[in-house]
Amino acid sequence: MNVTFINPFLQSLLNVVSTMANMQLTPGKPRLKTDNLAKGDVSGLIGMVGPQTKGSLSITFEQGLILEIMQNMLGENPGNINEEVTDLVGEITNMVTGGAKNLLSDKGYEFEMATPVVVSGIGHKISHQAQGKKIIMPFVAPKGSAYIEICFEDQ
Amino acid sequence: MNVTFINPFLQSLLNVVSTMANMQLTPGKPRLKTDNLAKGDVSGLIGMVGPQTKGSLSITFEQGLILEIMQNMLGENPGNINEEVTDLVGEITNMVTGGAKNLLSDKGYEFEMATPVVVSGIGHKISHQAQGKKIIMPFVAPKGSAYIEICFEDQ
Repeated sequence: MNVTFINPFLQSLLNVVSTMANMQLTPGKPRLKTDNLAKGDVSGLIGMVGPQTKGSLSITFEQGLILEIMQNMLGENPGNINEEVTDLVGEITNMVTGGAKNLLSDKGYEFEMATPVVVSGIGHKISHQAQGKKIIMPFVAPKGSAYIEICFEDQ
Repeated sequence: MNVTFINPFLQSLLNVVSTMANMQLTPGKPRLKTDNLAKGDVSGLIGMVGPQTKGSLSITFEQGLILEIMQNMLGENPGNINEEVTDLVGEITNMVTGGAKNLLSDKGYEFEMATPVVVSGIGHKISHQAQGKKIIMPFVAPKGSAYIEICFEDQ
């Protein structure tokens, strides 16, 4: 995993949440994921396929944080993770991955994005299966945390 | 969603489970998914990107069924969904999608596979976000059910 791959995803989530929900997330230090212990309540997942590599991305939110983002964006808070929330997580996943794709394309790394899938379930765990290092990037906000995980096949 | 896309995935799961675990799953009738109510305990997800279309696939297992498959394949049953089980679900997801990819390639439909992601969490729900019809294929066995869901973008 090239470190070049990390910042575009991190920056892209900060941009999307700042622009759409007028919220500033505080990024923690990216680290190698050595277990499956990052748990969350709703996750967007997307596959990426390029000529140099392929891999997967997930963005996992704790319920309190995604409901606050929804409140800020749409002025409504359903109080739990309903279909509007899962659709929003799908959109955020697309936007974050698309933003990172553009930044990486400028550096010569190209990939195509599959379509996102959203998983909801309190305290679910995610295990990326690509044969490569798994990077986890934590983000914190007063109402809860979010995590981006990316994993690309080693070449 | 072309009906041509359904049978290769259905047949591929039957083949994989029969070959690897010596078990015969009973397929139910494929149907359009109109809600997110198919719940399971562990799911493998994979993105697909091709020149004609892109989409996502999930294979969701109830705990009893995946533990029986593991018992039959490896002679051990960990009793819950641990890392060996999630790795097995990732492998099954790769094999089923790869088998369907070969069958569809013979018919002129080409796509590349991203790498799988496995989600575990009792009773989680899955929502495919591609802008197209979602097909769900149920499978039953004495110890539990499995569901394949596929969704490709309308062209």
